[in-house]
Order: sequence, then structure tokens, then C-alpha cells
Amino acid sequence: MNEAKNAICAPLGFLACAVEAGIRKNRRLDLGLIYSQAPAVACGMFTQNSFAAAPVVISKSHLETKKAQAIIVNSGNANCYTGKKGLATARKTAALIANLLRLRNSSVLVASTGVIGRDLDFQKIKLAAPGLIKGLSKANGSRVALAIMTTDTHPKELRTRINLCGKAVTIGAVAKGAGMIQPDMATMLCFITTDCAIQYPALKAALKEAVVNSFNMITVDGCMSTNDSVLILANGLAANRPIALKSNDFHKFTIALKEICLGLARMIVRDAEGASKFITVRVSGGRNNNEARKAAFQIANSNLFKTALYGENPNWGRIIAAVGQSAVRVRDNLGIKFTSLKKTDIVVDVDLRVGRGKSVVYTSDLTPEYVRINAEYN
Amino acid sequence: MNEAKNAICAPLGFLACAVEAGIRKNRRLDLGLIYSQAPAVACGMFTQNSFAAAPVVISKSHLETKKAQAIIVNSGNANCYTGKKGLATARKTAALIANLLRLRNSSVLVASTGVIGRDLDFQKIKLAAPGLIKGLSKANGSRVALAIMTTDTHPKELRTRINLCGKAVTIGAVAKGAGMIQPDMATMLCFITTDCAIQYPALKAALKEAVVNSFNMITVDGCMSTNDSVLILANGLAANRPIALKSNDFHKFTIALKEICLGLARMIVRDAEGASKFITVRVSGGRNNNEARKAAFQIANSNLFKTALYGENPNWGRIIAAVGQSAVRVRDNLGIKFTSLKKTDIVVDVDLRVGRGKSVVYTSDLTPEYVRINAEYN
Repeated sequence: MNEAKNAICAPLGFLACAVEAGIRKNRRLDLGLIYSQAPAVACGMFTQNSFAAAPVVISKSHLETKKAQAIIVNSGNANCYTGKKGLATARKTAALIANLLRLRNSSVLVASTGVIGRDLDFQKIKLAAPGLIKGLSKANGSRVALAIMTTDTHPKELRTRINLCGKAVTIGAVAKGAGMIQPDMATMLCFITTDCAIQYPALKAALKEAVVNSFNMITVDGCMSTNDSVLILANGLAANRPIALKSNDFHKFTIALKEICLGLARMIVRDAEGASKFITVRVSGGRNNNEARKAAFQIANSNLFKTALYGENPNWGRIIAAVGQSAVRVRDNLGIKFTSLKKTDIVVDVDLRVGRGKSVVYTSDLTPEYVRINAEYN
Repeated sequence: MNEAKNAICAPLGFLACAVEAGIRKNRRLDLGLIYSQAPAVACGMFTQNSFAAAPVVISKSHLETKKAQAIIVNSGNANCYTGKKGLATARKTAALIANLLRLRNSSVLVASTGVIGRDLDFQKIKLAAPGLIKGLSKANGSRVALAIMTTDTHPKELRTRINLCGKAVTIGAVAKGAGMIQPDMATMLCFITTDCAIQYPALKAALKEAVVNSFNMITVDGCMSTNDSVLILANGLAANRPIALKSNDFHKFTIALKEICLGLARMIVRDAEGASKFITVRVSGGRNNNEARKAAFQIANSNLFKTALYGENPNWGRIIAAVGQSAVRVRDNLGIKFTSLKKTDIVVDVDLRVGRGKSVVYTSDLTPEYVRINAEYN
């Protein structure tokens, strides 16, 4: 696994570009395009928020075809809580790109991140689109990572290669973090490209397995965005034997995908707003995995726990209280261990001593800087 | 309703005292006693935390008799997560006071607040107890308010008087806030005294109604304490006709009790750790009251919402996101109104536009000072 240049363009047949479309207030990259030269099997996972943004609604609908060939993404505006007009804008954006790339509308997926409740200016996208298409190249892969950054302090890209019966299969991915954005709640976006040949049910199952064990196991402030999206395109150009569900290759691919997603998820937590610590909360001994997960999230989302770690204060009473609040089954005595709180990386082990359920959640500390970032009007 | 001196001693037949028992590190009042000269009908409401503290367990058990005559309370140590030894200490504390006051053990209720997981030194209580009994007086009522303060910046007492068929009935109450304590999660404690004559089922129903609509509708940081307790003693010395469930007097009494509890609950939020704003979140138009309550709490516990109000930033996108996360039924458009964010008191109105469900939750903003207080080792 590498933090590689051109990560999403590392697999065969993928090109990308990003431009300054003027959607963000400051002049910076804010519109990105990922393009597969060959048709790709595609699927996605999305926020559970009831106010899912327009691009989430449109991408879900386009993914009903189980295929896609391009992803158009903007920062600076979430196109969320924008009603029918917002849906029309997302639809027109997909159609615009489809037309320029000579694809069906449904082959283009859409993603947005930024301020909630303001209309996204379609004209800006329309004006910028030709330049975006013209600039498509392998070399421009990393520009997408820059274009989707919001309060992220650095771009987040990874790639990996696996060998499937003598064929080299590459996976590339880019993500942006869960932090605030001018000045609204931000979003976790992740786009994954691969030249792997894989059947739709296998791709869907692999993505779910990867996301559930990575992006769904991180929390910065317990707030759920309206725009969270993870999208994957698999164009088959590696010419491996198409992966079927539950085959050996399926397991190999899933492990690689999980590693990529977990790597990016950890990068997101490490770069969380105001964070000074990277905290791993490992819960064991739960009645089952689900109860272990519930307890781990209750700890990881406890402001009292998070401020204690910021203060390098081994305050295990707050862990007791959080576990008790989670209402999972426990014994009278928990097993609690901390690694040194003076370090940047802290591991907290909590044994519920009931059964064999396990879970790991990653989080950051709660700092005055988090409050400052999120209090500022921008 | 008055912020009255000797509030818990305002009703007939109640005496109180508090002393420095040396349980807290700094020399200050840390042990309080409330005593009813006549037997009283009694009940309580307690934390739902699985790691309920020893005094919670013992008080619940003593309340099975539906009677009590004294409450002994300490700060500086929560007597929580202290195993069998902690239970024995709470039991011995009740027995000690019962013996000195010539009561049954079960007539004494116990409460604690302070650090979790450290043994509470019974010897200190034993040494201090005689002085505590000796000092019992009306005038010392307000000392209990001081003895239970932790990060509270001022004592919280209220009293009120109602007229029931020509008889004056008085209710007094004292509370401490939900803030941190040296350095563990703190607790909401509230003790209510009244000279009202009331049947047990009526007292229980009135207390539940009052607590559900007051202490259960406030949140500072979403963290649930292990020691939360609300206790009420009604000694009947006002000689009113004993109140029965659902009578006219019952409604009058319940309204008065609710006012007292709501008044104290609001004082707690106003005095929350690091708070610079008092925020009322009013949700209307819910499918039912429960859904309105869910949405209101999701907003009130959102760190993004709380930091925005600290920053005086009318960031309604964060309200949208929080309501969406709460998964209650909504229309595409919410009605959202703020009062001026420049003021200390802010009201946020959110109309879900689905039905007639309503709820009001009180909270504070999230400030760098909150982080500082809770990061500090003490």
C-alpha cells in the first residue's frame, strides 16, 4: 500500500483532472473529474442522513444500472437542502459531463461537499467542464485529491496492487476528511478506482465489507454528514478472470480494498479538525460484536473522554461512565488499559468480560482548536 | 417561586446541616444531612447508567419501604465502581446516621458525587457524623447547597408555596449541576423536601412528571453520570388532606413541583461548565412528542451546533444535518428560526412540519473553556 502520486489514476484506463471553477470563495481547485476509458462495474455507499444531498440521490439512482464511467465532484457547496432545484442541478451536471464524454447520463456519478442550503451555481460547472475534459490525464490524478479537500490539511490518496492468478490488479483511492467546511458540516468522500474485473455482486459485497470495517468505524464528533459517499468503479482492464462472490480472488480483493479504506479512514482521523491525538478504542469481551461496537462508539464519542485525552489525563472513570451509558451487557469490573497518553497515538483497551464480541473504533481528541475551527464564521 | 435561603428547610419539620469531613482535597463543606422531624413518604428517580454508584443502589433498596426521614450526601467521591466495599460503605453510612437519629436504617437515603473508582473513606464520615447531627437547624439548610457543589459556580436552591384548601404547603429543593468533578464525570443531584401530605402513588407520579419535563430535558455534553439522583421527602406536617392520585390537589402539587424542578434544571444549564450561552431548543411539528424530543436532543447534543452558537454563527445547516441524523420523520423543508445570537439566552425553533409533536430541550454552548475544564487533571 502506497501513498502514491496519481493514486486514482494508478489502475489501467483511469484519467482525471481538476480545475478552479469558482465555486469556492477562495481561488482554488474545486471541481474534479474521474474518468474510466472503459465501461466499469460500479457501486456506492452513502450517508444515512434523512436530508441526503441532491448528488447522493442522483448517484444512487444512476447506480441502479450497476455501471458507471465517470465521477464529477465539487467542493465549496454541498448541494444539500436545495430542493428540486438542487436535484435538477445534480442531474444537469451529470448530463453535461455525459454529453462531453459521450456517455449515457446514468454513467456519470455526482458528489458534492461544502455549505448546506445554498444553490449550487450550474453555470460555473458548465463553464469549467470543457477545461476539465481537456485536462484529463494520468498525471492529473492527484489534482482531484486537492480539489475535494475542505478543512483537510493535506490530500489523502492510497494505492495498492494485488496479484490474481498472474494478473496484476491495481486499486487507487482518494478521500477527504470529516471536518468542517465554510462553515457547514463537512463530509467524508471517497472515490475508488480499480482495473479489476469483478462481477457486480462481488464488488458490492467487497465494498460493504471494506466500508463497514473502515469509514464506518471512525468518529470525529459524532455528527453525520448529509453528503457522505463512497464510490467505486471497476473497469476490468487488468484482464483477470472476473471475480465472483466468495471465490478465493474475492477474498484477496476484499482484503486489499479493506486495507485501502482503513488506511484512508485512519488518515482522516489523524487529520481531524483540531486533533492532537489519534485514538484507537479497542473493545473486547462484548456479548457480541455489535455490543462491543456500541460501547466503543459511546466511549469514542464521549466529550469527557476526548477532553481527558487531550489533557493527557488517564481518566478511566469517564470510560466506565460511557460504557455504562451504552447499556451493553457488562460485568461489575471492566479491564481497562491505556498506552502512554504523552504520545500522539494512544490505544485504549476495554474488556467488557462478558463474551467474545470485539470492535475497534478510531477517533481524535476534543481540543480548544476544534471549538475554534467550528465556531468561526467564514 | 423564590431563590430562597434555607430552601430545603422552608417546609415544616425539616432541618439540615453540612460540615467539612475532609473527603474533598480542599478544605470545604463536603458532607450534608437533611432530616425530617416527622416520618415522610419518599421516592426517587435515578441514573440509567449500568454502573450505577453504590449510594444509588442502596437508596433504591431503602425506598422500597416508600418512606424515609433523612438524606446523607457527600461530595468529593462518587462511591462508584467500588464493588462490594463501596456498597458496604453506603450501607454503613445509612446505618450510622440512622443510629444517631434513632431511625431505621432504611429511613436514611444516601447520595454521593465526585471521583469514580476510589474507595470512599467511611472513617471520615464516622468522625464527622456527630457534628452533623448536632448542627441540624433550619438556618443550616443552605449549607447543604454549598456542600454538594462541584464545578458549580454558585449554589442552586428554590422554594415555592401553594395553597391546598386553605392549607399552605411548601416545597423546597436543592440541586447541583452536571459538570465535571475532580476530575471525573459529575452528577446531577436534587433533593426535594415538602410538608405536603400526599399518598405514595401520587408522590411518585408527581415526581416522575416533574423530572421527565425538567432534569430529563437538559443536556450539557450528552454524557450520563453514574450517580444522578432526585429524591423527595413529603412529611405531611402541612396537615392538608392527603393528596390522592389525579385529584385537583394532585395537579396543583404536580405543577408546583414541575416548576421547582424546571427552575433548578435551567439553573444547572446556565451554570454548565464553560458555558457562555443558555440555549432553548424548541421542536414542533413532530410525528409525536417522542420524535420531537429525539430531534431536539440530536440538535442539542451536536458539537457542531454547540460550537456554532458559541461562535454566534447562525449555522442552520448544522441543524438540518442533526435533524437528518436523528432519523425522525420530516418534510423536505423545515421551519427554522433563531433569536439573536449575540445575546446570552438563545431560542432555536425548529418545525418538522409533520404532525403535532412538541418538545423543549435546554442546553449550553461548547466552548474552549469546557475543553479546558475537562482536560485538566486535578
